Amino acid sequence: MLIKDSTQSHYTLSNDPKLQEGHAIELDKEDPIAHAIALFDIPQGVVYLDGNSLGPLPISAKKMAIDVVERQWGQDLITSWNKHAWIDLPITVGNKIAPLIGAKHGQVICCDSISVNLFKVLASALQMNGPTRHKVLSQQDNFPTDLYMVEGLEQMFGSHKCSLLTCSADQIESVLEQQGHEISVLMLTHVNFRSGEIHDMQKLTQLAHKQGVLVIWDLAHSAGAVHVELDECQVDFAVGCGYKYLNGGPGAPAFIYAANKHITSLKQPLTGWMGHANPFTFEPGYKADAGIKKFLSGTPSVISMSVLNAALDVFEQVNMEQVREKSVAMTCFFQRLVAQTDVLCGLTLASPLSSENRGSQLAYKHPAAYALCQALISEGVVADFRAPDIIRFGFSPTFLSFHQLFVSVEKLSAIMLSEKYKQAEFNRKQAVT
Amino acid sequence: MLIKDSTQSHYTLSNDPKLQEGHAIELDKEDPIAHAIALFDIPQGVVYLDGNSLGPLPISAKKMAIDVVERQWGQDLITSWNKHAWIDLPITVGNKIAPLIGAKHGQVICCDSISVNLFKVLASALQMNGPTRHKVLSQQDNFPTDLYMVEGLEQMFGSHKCSLLTCSADQIESVLEQQGHEISVLMLTHVNFRSGEIHDMQKLTQLAHKQGVLVIWDLAHSAGAVHVELDECQVDFAVGCGYKYLNGGPGAPAFIYAANKHITSLKQPLTGWMGHANPFTFEPGYKADAGIKKFLSGTPSVISMSVLNAALDVFEQVNMEQVREKSVAMTCFFQRLVAQTDVLCGLTLASPLSSENRGSQLAYKHPAAYALCQALISEGVVADFRAPDIIRFGFSPTFLSFHQLFVSVEKLSAIMLSEKYKQAEFNRKQAVT
Repeated sequence: MLIKDSTQSHYTLSNDPKLQEGHAIELDKEDPIAHAIALFDIPQGVVYLDGNSLGPLPISAKKMAIDVVERQWGQDLITSWNKHAWIDLPITVGNKIAPLIGAKHGQVICCDSISVNLFKVLASALQMNGPTRHKVLSQQDNFPTDLYMVEGLEQMFGSHKCSLLTCSADQIESVLEQQGHEISVLMLTHVNFRSGEIHDMQKLTQLAHKQGVLVIWDLAHSAGAVHVELDECQVDFAVGCGYKYLNGGPGAPAFIYAANKHITSLKQPLTGWMGHANPFTFEPGYKADAGIKKFLSGTPSVISMSVLNAALDVFEQVNMEQVREKSVAMTCFFQRLVAQTDVLCGLTLASPLSSENRGSQLAYKHPAAYALCQALISEGVVADFRAPDIIRFGFSPTFLSFHQLFVSVEKLSAIMLSEKYKQAEFNRKQAVT
Repeated sequence: MLIKDSTQSHYTLSNDPKLQEGHAIELDKEDPIAHAIALFDIPQGVVYLDGNSLGPLPISAKKMAIDVVERQWGQDLITSWNKHAWIDLPITVGNKIAPLIGAKHGQVICCDSISVNLFKVLASALQMNGPTRHKVLSQQDNFPTDLYMVEGLEQMFGSHKCSLLTCSADQIESVLEQQGHEISVLMLTHVNFRSGEIHDMQKLTQLAHKQGVLVIWDLAHSAGAVHVELDECQVDFAVGCGYKYLNGGPGAPAFIYAANKHITSLKQPLTGWMGHANPFTFEPGYKADAGIKKFLSGTPSVISMSVLNAALDVFEQVNMEQVREKSVAMTCFFQRLVAQTDVLCGLTLASPLSSENRGSQLAYKHPAAYALCQALISEGVVADFRAPDIIRFGFSPTFLSFHQLFVSVEKLSAIMLSEKYKQAEFNRKQAVT
C-alpha cells in the first residue's frame, strides 16, 4: 500500500499484512524532512503526540528567548523598538506565516489571540456585508471559542445585527443553498479539533461566495500541518494559532489573514494605536493604517512574538507539501498499526477513515480513554484526552519519526495487557454495571 | 527644603541654595528602598530615565524567562498547564498587582493589551449604564489609544449608542456637572503620559458618581509608581500596563480591575473560551465565569505573563508608600538640579510645579529637545523625546539612585556647553530663521 498517489509521495508503506519495526525504520530513512527533528529540544525518551495542543520547543526559539530578554530587553532597553525591529514584528511574523498558508505577503499579521482576532474579522465582515444579512453560519461542533465570540457580538449588537446559526458538518452546503441570502458570514474551522475532519476549503468558499456570503476560516489545526491555499481558494479572512503546529510556545500570539481586495476598505472595531497610520504622531483622531496593520490594537507582546518568530525558522527547512505528505504517511502508518493489533480492538476510530479527509491527527474512542491516556503519558507517550471518551494523537511532521509511532503503539498494547490496567478495567466495568 | 511633609517622608532635601553631589549621596544613604536596585540587571554606566516607556529587566524576570521556556515548556510540555499552574496565571498575576493599586483580591486580572481591555470595560460600562446615556467623556490629550478605542466602539455601535466627548483637563468637572445626565462613562488616564499631571481620582470619581456616571481609570503611568487606592476611591473599572513601572518586559500583558459590586452582573463582549465558567467542558453555549475571569478571551500569553509575574516580585520588597515617597523626592531633586543650573535655563518645565500634582516623571520643553535627547542617550542617559519639543524623564523609584540623577544633570549641562552641541544649535537657529 502506498501512502498517497505513488507519483507524489516520498513515503512507501509496505503491503505486508503486519507492519514491523523495520518498516518504521525504512520510512524514517526515506523521510526527506527527517533533518527537521534535530531542530527541536524534546526530552529524551518522550514521544510527543500532542503538538496539536502545544508544539514543543524549537532550539531556535530557546535561543531567541534568551536573546530577546537578556540582550534586546536587558541591554538595549527601549532602543530595541528600532534596533531590533520590535515595531515590525507583527508584520515580520505575519510574512513568515504567509507562505505556510498560501498567502502572498502583506495579507497576514501576527497579533492577539484567535478569540480576539475572530472578533475583529467577524465584525469587519458583518459590516462589509451590509445591514440586510446578519447571520453567521458555523458548525455545531466547531471549537467553542469560535461560537462564543459570535455570541459576544450578538449580545453586543443585538440579534437583528448578528445572530449565530449552527448546523452539522454535512448540512453546511444545504443550509448555504437554502438560507444563503440571509447569511452574512460562513465561519468554519478547517480541521476539526476533536475528530480531525477536514473541510474542502475551495468548494465551501466558492459555494458561499455564490450566495454572497463572506468566509472566515479558522486554521488553528491546519497552519503548519496541512497544505492550505488561502489566495488560491479566494478566502476572505482567516485566523490561526501560533502555539500548535507552528511551535511558537504556550499562548503564542495568533494571526489574521485578510485578502488584499478587502484590506483597504474594511473597518475593524478594536482600533488601538498600533493600528493607526502614524502611531507615534499621537494624533487625537483615529486613522487606520492602509494595510494589514489596521488589525493591530495594543502594543505587541514582544517576548512571545519574538519566540514565535524564531520558532518559524523550522519551516524554512521544509516545505508544506513535504509536511503534508509526511503527515498523511504518519496518520496512515499509525492507523494501520492500531488496526493490526488485536489487543487494541477496543479502540474505535473517531476520525475520517481516509487520510484525505483529515488533518494531522487521529482520534479514537474508548470507554477507558482517560485512564489509557494517563497510562500512556506515564510511559512517556504524550497524547491528549478529550471528554468523554476520546484519545487524540497529534502527528507533527516536523519533529516526529515513524519509529516513535511504532514505539507508541507497542506501549499502548503493553498497557492494555498489563495486570494493572486489566484490574482497573475490571473495577471500572463493575462500577458501571 | 523637605521633599514632603517632614513627618512622613524618609527623604530630606537640603536647604542649601546649591545642591551638590554630596546631597545625592546622602539621599541614597537614607533611601529605605535602595536594596531594590540590586534586583535589576541594568547595563553598566547607563542611567535609565525611561522606565515609564519600558521598565528594565528584573533579575527575577530573567531567571523566569529561562525557566518558563527551557524547563516548563521544553521539558514539561503540555503538562505545565497544571504542573506549573499556567492556567491560573491571569488570576495569580492579577492578585499580585491588586495591592499595588489598592484593590482587594479577586478584582484584578492580567490579560491582553490596554487597548483591548479598554474595549471590554468600555462596552461593559456602556451596557451597564443603560440605553439613555451614550457619551464617553475623556480628556483631549489623553493617550491616543484610549480615545481611539472609543471611536472604534462608536463606529461599530453607531453614535446613538456610543459617542466620544472630550474636553481639557480643567473642564472635566464643569462638563460633568452640566452634561452629566447624558454621560455614561468618564474615562481618564490617571497620570498624563506627556506632562505627568495627575488627576484627583477620589474627587473626580465621586463627582462622576453623583451624576450617575461610571468611571474607568487608565493606570498606565500610575501602577508601580504612584499610590493608587481603587477600592477606597470606589472606582468602577481600571486598566493598566505591565511593561512600564511594573517592569514586565516589552509588550507585557496588561490588566483589568473591576469593582466587586459590578463583576457578577456585567457583560463584556470578547467572550472567548478562557472566560467561560468551564472552558474545558467545551460546551457549545457561552456561560461567563462568575468572577473576574469573565474578562479573559483567548489563551493567555504564558511566556510573557510568566515574565511579568516574576518581575512583580520586586514589589514584594517595597511598599507603594515608599515608592511614592521616593518618586516625589526624585522629581523634586531633579527639578531643583535643573533649576539651579544656569546653562539649563532654556529648559522649560512642562509638568506641574508641585510634586503633588504629578506622577513619576518630568517633562521639559526645549526647541532642540530631539537633539538633546539623542546626545543624552549617547552619553548613557536614556530619556525620551515626545514630539514636537519635549524631553521626558521618568523616575522609577525601584531601580534609580539619587546619584544617578545628579550625574544625568551634570551630563546634560556638559552637552549644552559642548562645542558640538553649540554648533548644532547655531545651525538649527540659522535654519529656522
